[in-house]
Amino acid sequence: MGQAAQRPTLEFWFEFASTYSYPAAMRVEDVCAAAGVALRWRPFLLGPIFAAQGWNDSPFNLYPIKGHYMWRDLERLCDAQGIPFRRPSVFPRNGLLAARVACIGAEEGWAAEFVRGVYHANFAEDREIADATVVGAVLESIRRPAGAILERAQEPVVKRALRANTDEAIARGIFGAPSATAGSELFWGNDRLEDAVGWARLGTPSM
Amino acid sequence: MGQAAQRPTLEFWFEFASTYSYPAAMRVEDVCAAAGVALRWRPFLLGPIFAAQGWNDSPFNLYPIKGHYMWRDLERLCDAQGIPFRRPSVFPRNGLLAARVACIGAEEGWAAEFVRGVYHANFAEDREIADATVVGAVLESIRRPAGAILERAQEPVVKRALRANTDEAIARGIFGAPSATAGSELFWGNDRLEDAVGWARLGTPSM
Repeated sequence: MGQAAQRPTLEFWFEFASTYSYPAAMRVEDVCAAAGVALRWRPFLLGPIFAAQGWNDSPFNLYPIKGHYMWRDLERLCDAQGIPFRRPSVFPRNGLLAARVACIGAEEGWAAEFVRGVYHANFAEDREIADATVVGAVLESIRRPAGAILERAQEPVVKRALRANTDEAIARGIFGAPSATAGSELFWGNDRLEDAVGWARLGTPSM
Repeated sequence: MGQAAQRPTLEFWFEFASTYSYPAAMRVEDVCAAAGVALRWRPFLLGPIFAAQGWNDSPFNLYPIKGHYMWRDLERLCDAQGIPFRRPSVFPRNGLLAARVACIGAEEGWAAEFVRGVYHANFAEDREIADATVVGAVLESIRRPAGAILERAQEPVVKRALRANTDEAIARGIFGAPSATAGSELFWGNDRLEDAVGWARLGTPSM
């Protein structure tokens, strides 16, 4: 048990609406496993963080030139990673319900499959992840009791867990997703995943 | 000559004030050479591009949480890359004169050494690169006639060359630095340098 507590750990901070969180979420478990680093899934909401910066929408919508680039870049990244991509017809989608369910999954140990299922629904199948039926279908696909979990997702303890994650993200200086933390070191972006894992393992970047 | 024209080429778009352009500029020549890709140095100005987005300062100053992260991230990157880093006491510095000189260097084939010298002055030595004496010292350190070149940097043809680069950057959808283009494909950031070079070489990302 003492050993488990000391095992190097990466905390992966993600938001279901976030585009670059998609390729990162699909590979973070493998990247951590290959490095012998434990993974903690930390769903949070970008909305309050963006609002504090004066944004009421995704910066990719507010700055369309950057948004145009991002969609092409994401397409290339998914291609190179060998994961399907279809540009969502609605962006950003509201990931609140899915994030609450992910909090339950993180507690119970089935977050990985659920998270990947939700990202796949949003960014490969263009499905409305704000919909309880879509979130429920993802839960069923990973053999979890959808009805019971969707009910629990509305309980105050679960709402508080997600709020606590978002508060902790803000306290740690997180301003975008995906982010990864290794101890007090913060890494932003899918591009920094390997560096973050290397830092978690060795206390230094992997580069 | 026909062969030279067909040689795969990476265009490297950079701004001397830009923080992440520093590690990118220090390694882009090696990365290109290792891949057999020709390198074209494209200095440009971010000021007009940021102004069009409603910013009158670096986004790293306008969004201090992001800025705080960037300085730590840059320190880690420089460490991993084995290049010195000292946080500039003034940020962003005005790179106009240095960019004009870089236009001359790109024309005459000595841009690489000059560009690295200016970045080193700004981000390793904390020197004021807006100063003609500092730019002149960099020119002297690479055995170029500083006085004559600084005079030429004020000629309309040189000013036009830099303006043309900035106009072309805007036309290509460039919104930040460093950027790299391979044909019509755009890549943003130090992180994407390898992908950009891979695309230039093979028409596909290197990942």
